[in-house]
Order: sequence, then structure tokens, then C-alpha cells
Amino acid sequence: MKRGPKIRNTTIPGFKFAGIPAGIKKSGNRDLALIYSECPAVTVGLFTTNRIKAAPVKLAIKNISSGKAQAIIINSGNANACTGEKGMKAAREIMTSTAHELGISPGLVYSSSTGIIGRPFPVETIKKALPDLIKKLSPLSLKHTASSIMTTDTFAKISFKQIEIGGRKGTIAGIAKGAGMICPNMATMLCFIVTDIAINPQALDAALREAASRSFNMLSVDNDMSTNDTVMIMANGRLNNPLITKRSPDYSIFKSALNEISYDLARMIAEDGEGATKLIEVIVKGARSKSDAGKIALSVANSMLVKTAVYGRDPNWGRIMAAIGYSGIAVNENKIDISLNKVKLVSNGMGTGKEKTARNALLTKNIIITIELGNGKESARALTCDLTEGYIKINAHYST
Amino acid sequence: MKRGPKIRNTTIPGFKFAGIPAGIKKSGNRDLALIYSECPAVTVGLFTTNRIKAAPVKLAIKNISSGKAQAIIINSGNANACTGEKGMKAAREIMTSTAHELGISPGLVYSSSTGIIGRPFPVETIKKALPDLIKKLSPLSLKHTASSIMTTDTFAKISFKQIEIGGRKGTIAGIAKGAGMICPNMATMLCFIVTDIAINPQALDAALREAASRSFNMLSVDNDMSTNDTVMIMANGRLNNPLITKRSPDYSIFKSALNEISYDLARMIAEDGEGATKLIEVIVKGARSKSDAGKIALSVANSMLVKTAVYGRDPNWGRIMAAIGYSGIAVNENKIDISLNKVKLVSNGMGTGKEKTARNALLTKNIIITIELGNGKESARALTCDLTEGYIKINAHYST
Repeated sequence: MKRGPKIRNTTIPGFKFAGIPAGIKKSGNRDLALIYSECPAVTVGLFTTNRIKAAPVKLAIKNISSGKAQAIIINSGNANACTGEKGMKAAREIMTSTAHELGISPGLVYSSSTGIIGRPFPVETIKKALPDLIKKLSPLSLKHTASSIMTTDTFAKISFKQIEIGGRKGTIAGIAKGAGMICPNMATMLCFIVTDIAINPQALDAALREAASRSFNMLSVDNDMSTNDTVMIMANGRLNNPLITKRSPDYSIFKSALNEISYDLARMIAEDGEGATKLIEVIVKGARSKSDAGKIALSVANSMLVKTAVYGRDPNWGRIMAAIGYSGIAVNENKIDISLNKVKLVSNGMGTGKEKTARNALLTKNIIITIELGNGKESARALTCDLTEGYIKINAHYST
Repeated sequence: MKRGPKIRNTTIPGFKFAGIPAGIKKSGNRDLALIYSECPAVTVGLFTTNRIKAAPVKLAIKNISSGKAQAIIINSGNANACTGEKGMKAAREIMTSTAHELGISPGLVYSSSTGIIGRPFPVETIKKALPDLIKKLSPLSLKHTASSIMTTDTFAKISFKQIEIGGRKGTIAGIAKGAGMICPNMATMLCFIVTDIAINPQALDAALREAASRSFNMLSVDNDMSTNDTVMIMANGRLNNPLITKRSPDYSIFKSALNEISYDLARMIAEDGEGATKLIEVIVKGARSKSDAGKIALSVANSMLVKTAVYGRDPNWGRIMAAIGYSGIAVNENKIDISLNKVKLVSNGMGTGKEKTARNALLTKNIIITIELGNGKESARALTCDLTEGYIKINAHYST
């Protein structure tokens, strides 16, 4: 699991990438990306549960049942949401034009958008940039794709892993964008994962759902869920391994790698939350069920009071207790232990008086809040970041 | 409905009030209050649904079924929550001592606390201050009671109304504290209402539930719910009106006055949200049911992105659309209209381009977001405030 310069030359057999500035963003930054597989890839996806969905998301939900894709075109700077019939037409046009330029079937092209809601979609700008985008396709350009999908992100998010499948070295790589509007069950989160491993659609779908439930769906920046969330994975089978099914011995190796990639990307999204100075991981243990543990972890991760306390290095465990209590899950107050970066602040529901030590422990960039409920054996973890003046500045003073 | 200096000399027949600095708060501000009725009053209450409850809340929930009270002692500066058996004992001791000093039955005394969680409760400090507190009881001191229960509130919240009941002028007065940790279904919210109107417990309870469901339960500052929330109302019957029951013609007059008082106090709490510069009222119309309308109103009121946009005077209606969409309620995107202070920004789901006019309309201190769903005839409204750097400062840098 690496990120940054070390993965600069990541390649995934059979995949090419591009990312260019197409003029959608006023800043002149990269804003148009393409992921292309040399052959049709087994493809599955998960999409926002927001009742109001962006045009490309509506189309993707319709098309994903085919289980195949060869290209995904992604733009930042405009969400193509709340754009009416015009927006739907624009999304279709982008997909058709991309297919035409690539010389593949339109049914194998997906589009994805992120950015401001409700502005006319710059369909002509994108169409004009298509030839250049396609010309730039290269096995070495994953990093450009990753930076093209950024909105208020401060760094490109790439995760990469190699695993042995049937004696061969298979590759899984993922890119993501996050920053604001991140809440349980995704948000303005786009994530695209590619692999050369051969796997059937049923197994791929189940693996993606498991991975998302433990990563992107346990992630909260500000509790706002967007109209555009998308997680897609393309598996082009170029590794020529024996096809993985749910019954293959290799399936668990694949799942575990996908879980790692997804959690790694989710962690980067939390770390890069708008205005964040600290990454917060909330670990809940000793719950009666995984679902109970997850609900409590998210309740704490969503608490603005907990997030501001971490920012201010205030070991205010009362706010954590309150958030546990309003999760709706039955807990026994007198059995609860709470630690901040391994400093035990609460033992059996009562303060230990170690606030001073905890305050020092809060100096680190990564904060782990561990909650032991003493009710059972199940656990879960959630990811979030601190809440700072930076978040307010970004969201009050810029239209995003 | 008045507040501030004009109600300085509010009296409610048969009630006396006191509020003094007892030394619980380091600041030396008033932190101990007493509400006293000359005779036992019909009393009902609503309490936090947080699974972790402060000691006095646990006791109040147990005692409220008696339907009677004569005194409520309230402290700020310490929540007496997560304080274990010691905290329970302390709360009981405060109630017994208060009853003893007042010469009334301990069963007629309630206690209530707000402030930091998990600190040892200053029971001796409070007991020592009791004689002075009782000495200060006066019909004219409601304002001191209101200021004694403040934590990060910037102004004391009092609402007052007189209504004609059976040819006599009855009085209802309420005080509240809010500021942070305010979320649907109450929060660190304390509210005490007193009236000289005679009403039976069943009618009073039903009226309070209705009033809370339309005011305190539609109020959100930061979505955090406290361990201490309490709304209580005492009706001492000193007006000597014919007892109001659910069947009395006067019942609807009483309910409507209580609704007004409650909404007025909730509005003040939102207005005085931590760091707030603007009061936001979200009105949802045209819903299939009241419950649908309420859920959408709260979803928008809870959105950090909407709250920061209002702060930055950014008429970013896409964030409002997203919050409507993730409320979970089925909506027809193409029927939605959205207005900001009467400037129609969205018509039939699409932008009207009136951002510039809306930006000017956002100069006012009171912001009304009106959402017309076009799905039915029901409506609801929610209260919140903008989210600013001030909120972060208050909650990151002070233990509250």
C-alpha cells in the first residue's frame, strides 16, 4: 500500500489513462479524465442513495446491469446534477462521442461528474477536448486521472496493490476524490478501481459491496451526501488467471486486497477532508453486533463536538459519551471504556483524570478513539477528520 | 411575545424565582437558579432520548409520573453526567437539601444540570449557596433564573404571553438555554415554563408534547444531542380559572399560546447558536405528510454545507437540493421550487439564474429557505443557524 511519488509509474496491464485541463474549471487545472481498457472489462458499481441523482449517475445505474465497460470519462468542475432533460442529453452525448472517438460501442462507455450542482453542463467544451484526451492515453498516466477528478481535494488519491493469484502477479489500483459532502453511504465521492485479474461479475459485485461497507460507507467528513457518488471497478482479465468465482480459493485473497485498497482510499479522503488537520479513526469494540458497533462508530465520527474537540486537542470525553448515547444503540454506561491514542480516559463509564496525558497524545496527526462497550464481541471502525475554521472558509466563501 | 428589557418586570402569580453566582463556574457568573411555586403545581416534562442520561435527568424521569412539583433547582457549569453512583447521590442530596430549606416535601423538588460532562459534581458548593439562593426568591427575578442557566449562550432567553382564560388574564412564561449540542429531539437544551393557569396533567402533557414537536424538536444547531435535555412546565392554578381539560373550549387557546412560547424560545436558541451570525428558518410545503415535511426541513437545517453557504451569503441551492435528496423522502425533482428570502432560485427543479438577487437577499440576519415540493398539502418548519468560524473557536478551544 503506497501513495505519492513511489507509485508514479504504476501500470495495470491492459489499462490506459489520461487526464487533461479541458477548460471546465476556471483555475485551468486538470478537469477531464479517461480510464480505458484495451478490452471490455467485467464492471460493477455502487451509486449514491440520494433521491436526487446527477444525470450521469442515473444513466450509470441503468447501464451497470450489463456488467461490462471499456471506458469511463470523468469530469470535475460541474456535477451535471439538477440540470433537467438538458443534462441527461448532455451526459448521453458525452458517452456517445467518447465511444465514437475510441471506436467502441457506446454501451461500454460510462460517464461521471463532480463539481457544482445546477450549472449548465459544458458539453461542447468536453467534446472539443475529447481528441486531445484520447491522444494522451497512456499506461503511465493514472496519476493524471487521479488529479483530474479532484475538486477541493488537496492531493491526488491513489492506492495500489499486487497480489499473487494462481502463481501470477495481479494488480489492483484505485483512485478517489473526496473532500467535502462526505458522509456515510458515500458522498461527493468518486472512486474508480481497475484490475487485470479475471473475476466473474457476481464475485466482483459481492467483493465491492463488502469493501465499500467497511470503508467508504464508514467515512464521514460533514454528513452531507452528494448527488454524484460513484464507486466502480473494472476487471479486464488480462492476467489470464483462472477466472475467480465466489467459490475460488483465491477469492478471499482478492477480497482482502480490495478491502485494503478501499480502506486506504477512504483513509486518504478523511485525511484530506475540507480544512482537516487530523485524521480520526473511531474504533468500537465489544458490541453485540457489527451493526451496533458501526452505528456507534459513525455517531461519534459524525459529532461536530467531537471533531472540534480533537481539533482543539481537548480530551473532552463527555462529548464522545454523548455521541455514543444518541446513536440509539442500547449501551451500559457503566461498562464503557474510552481511550484517545491509547490513553485511557474513561474506565467503566467514569473519568480516569488522565486529561493532561491525553492532551499530549492529541499532538499527533492521526487520532485513534477506541471505545470498548463491554457488551459483546463485535467491532467496527469509522473514519473522519477534525472540524476546523478551514472547513468553514472553504464552504462559506467558495461555491463548491 | 417580547424579550429583553421589556419583560424585566414579568411576574407570574404564585411563582418566585432566584438566580445567583454560587461559585460553580470559574467565571463568577450566575450559575444556580431556583423556580418556586407557592403551592404544588401540576407539572409535566420531556427529557433527552440520549441513552446516556445525566443523574438529575434519570431522577426526574422517575419522579415526573407524580405530575406534581413545587420547586426546580438548576445549576450550570456542571452537567452531573457520567458521574456514576456518586453523581446520583449528589443529585438526590441537592433535592433533599432544597426541600428541607424550603420546608416542602422532597418529592416536590426537581433538579436540573447543564455544563461539562464527567466532572465531579460540586454538591457542597451548591448546598452552601442554598440559603442565599432561597433568600433571593422574588416574583421579579425570572431574568436572573434565565441568566443563571446559560452556558455558552450570549443572551438570556425569556418568552412571555398573556391570554384570556374564562374572562381572566392568565400568564405563561418560559425560559430556555441552548447554544451548542442542539439537535432534533432536543439537546443541551433546558427549558422551564411556568403558568398560573389551572389545567389538568393530561391536557398539560399533551399540550407540551405538541409544542415541543413543533419547536424544540425541529431545532438544530449542530446535530449533537446532550445527556441533559429537559423541558418542564409547571401550572400552579393560581388564576383560579375553571380547570382546563382536553375537552375545554379554552384548551386550544392554551395550546396555541404554549406553541408560540415554545417556538419563540426555540427561535432564540437557534439565533444564539454557537458562533451564529444568522437565524435560518427552513419551511417545507407541499409534502405528502407532516412527517415527510419535517424530515426534509430537518435534513436541510442539519446540512453543514447549507449552513456554511448561508454564512458566506452563497445562494448555493445545489446543496439544498442534495439535502432534500438525502432526507430519504421520495420527492419529484422536477416539481421542486426553492426560494431564499422570497427570491425564487429553483423552479421545477432547475435554477432560475437569480443568484445575484439572492446574494443580496442573504444580507439580512433572518434567512428563510422555502421549499415547495408539489407533492401534497402538508408543511413543516425547522430552525437552525449558520455555521461559522465562531462555532469552531468556541468548541475547539474551550471545554464545554
